[in-house]
Amino acid sequence: MVDYFSIKWVDGRVRMLDQRLLPQRIEYLDFTDYHEVAWAIREMVIRGAPAIGAAAGYGLALAAENSNSGNLADAVRELKEAATILLDARPTAVNLSYAVERVMQRVTASPFTDFAGFRRLVFNEATAIAEENVRMNESIGRNALPFVPEKASILHHCNTGALATVAYGTALGIIRAAHEHGKKVFVYVDETRPRLQGARLTAWELQQLDIPHAVIVDGAAAYIMKEKGVDLVTVGCDRVAANGDTANKIGTYNLAIVARAHGVPFYVAAPTSTIDLSIQSGSKIPVEQRLSIEVSNIGAECIVPEGTQVLNPAFDVTPAEYITAIVTEQGVAYPPYSVSLPSMVAAAEAKRKVITSE
Amino acid sequence: MVDYFSIKWVDGRVRMLDQRLLPQRIEYLDFTDYHEVAWAIREMVIRGAPAIGAAAGYGLALAAENSNSGNLADAVRELKEAATILLDARPTAVNLSYAVERVMQRVTASPFTDFAGFRRLVFNEATAIAEENVRMNESIGRNALPFVPEKASILHHCNTGALATVAYGTALGIIRAAHEHGKKVFVYVDETRPRLQGARLTAWELQQLDIPHAVIVDGAAAYIMKEKGVDLVTVGCDRVAANGDTANKIGTYNLAIVARAHGVPFYVAAPTSTIDLSIQSGSKIPVEQRLSIEVSNIGAECIVPEGTQVLNPAFDVTPAEYITAIVTEQGVAYPPYSVSLPSMVAAAEAKRKVITSE
Repeated sequence: MVDYFSIKWVDGRVRMLDQRLLPQRIEYLDFTDYHEVAWAIREMVIRGAPAIGAAAGYGLALAAENSNSGNLADAVRELKEAATILLDARPTAVNLSYAVERVMQRVTASPFTDFAGFRRLVFNEATAIAEENVRMNESIGRNALPFVPEKASILHHCNTGALATVAYGTALGIIRAAHEHGKKVFVYVDETRPRLQGARLTAWELQQLDIPHAVIVDGAAAYIMKEKGVDLVTVGCDRVAANGDTANKIGTYNLAIVARAHGVPFYVAAPTSTIDLSIQSGSKIPVEQRLSIEVSNIGAECIVPEGTQVLNPAFDVTPAEYITAIVTEQGVAYPPYSVSLPSMVAAAEAKRKVITSE
Repeated sequence: MVDYFSIKWVDGRVRMLDQRLLPQRIEYLDFTDYHEVAWAIREMVIRGAPAIGAAAGYGLALAAENSNSGNLADAVRELKEAATILLDARPTAVNLSYAVERVMQRVTASPFTDFAGFRRLVFNEATAIAEENVRMNESIGRNALPFVPEKASILHHCNTGALATVAYGTALGIIRAAHEHGKKVFVYVDETRPRLQGARLTAWELQQLDIPHAVIVDGAAAYIMKEKGVDLVTVGCDRVAANGDTANKIGTYNLAIVARAHGVPFYVAAPTSTIDLSIQSGSKIPVEQRLSIEVSNIGAECIVPEGTQVLNPAFDVTPAEYITAIVTEQGVAYPPYSVSLPSMVAAAEAKRKVITSE
């Protein structure tokens, strides 16, 4: 078992595991400039909605740290510029804007009189976002325990483990919590084309955690459900709309339909920071279209004829009707989501107010 | 446009396009021994149910050609041995056993008095199987024309083109016929993991045919149906049971469920030689489990951590209820398939009897 982390603040630098190299190589990169952090998010050195939220927070901390403005007003303007650049790095995950807005609100709302105070404020809020994420994930895992039978076959799409978050994981956190509670878990791991986060990252994390698993191609999900039997599907999410429609890695929507056809419950693990009540339904969630080379080239291999058109939507939106429940750190949201999701978000906000005022 | 073929008898040899090298290289291999042909089927130098049927026929022709038995009875025994070895090469596609049994029946039923007559009998039957395949595919294409709108978006899984058959193609033949009849066709090409027959072969064939298309990952089918709109799905098959349950490339069953959820008609292209009335339902069709390396390695790249378990079912079975219609060279079979499929097979047999007795 390797000790690893997706992101950490180390001596004034942001350290990230370069997830593009896994599972072959374990290599960390250190960043000292927020532009580099934006690059790392865009290039998917770090990926997974909660992890890129934490990265954006620390990116702002770097921006504040490095500011050489003559006065505090200019420093805040610079921070806003950094916020814009970090927000632009990827469009679909709401955690990015959640983290950036939360830090900026803190800067606006709190008094500071010198550069040291300004920097402390930004850094503390970024750290709080990262630390809360870990506790949230542990809560999600606990809250989902009743959904996992004592002996469970679970199908999982993409990567939602410690690598996709700050630690522990969301949907993979559910699997991990069940395993830690002594349940006998077997995981079918969707390889998750095009970037193969399942084959490369989830299989690697499950290996570290000593949880039995097998990798399958995404197209084999229906076969596995029918021939082997699957008790539940767990996936993460990049953004949940107010009605429960959920954006997640491409292939999730396929999987949800296939699960429904086999009567397999379909659970979304969602920290409340991923719930975007400002968006009424999934049709309003922007879906990132990424470069065709992610599909057409695997390693050194080009798998399509020269000049072939390739479409590469990075996400899809699963309609709420296919989702059995959305598991948050505040509890489990059931349909109708337009009622249950706001109450989860309100509970999270109430708790944060208590903590902030303490 | 490149002129190409999957398999051809050339001067006493069986020539095959090595499909493992496409789209990067166009290279033909010549075989003079049926053991080599069995190897080529197993290693997927040639693949696609109708193409491997033709290959098995020509494999028997090689066995007869090369026979150095002292008498005709021994030569027939040798041919039976070759039949067993060719049948063993791949288990799921019924065309293999269809071709082998047809040649063997011909040998049993027809009189021959010398080696030349024996060899001619086997060769002629093998050639008939290959030639009929081409005419069948053209008929399938024509029979499916009413299902293709004048302007059509079609989603296609795996490869069912000239490469998968002797020429023209089955499900891709439907697309080709529509294109040749002046319909405006756009094809979404499922890349078809693990062996990427869609990305490697179908995209290449569509390029040769000048039919507009785009490659997508298999997981994007639901997204494409919802966001872009798809008029129909066409797939081939490796074996159709008497009730209409259809074995085809892994991922087909996923796709059929996703098509149903979006109200998209789902058509199976099936030469009657692919219909196996001796098998009552799909649960009785043997599904080939192939080596895990087909999933875990893409070119030189290993995409899973060392020691990871991988499952690699090569096929799945789509229940008849998800299939809108099965298009054969004899006409279109609609549900209930237990009635319509036998009538298609009977029509094919009746025609063959007329031809044989002419």
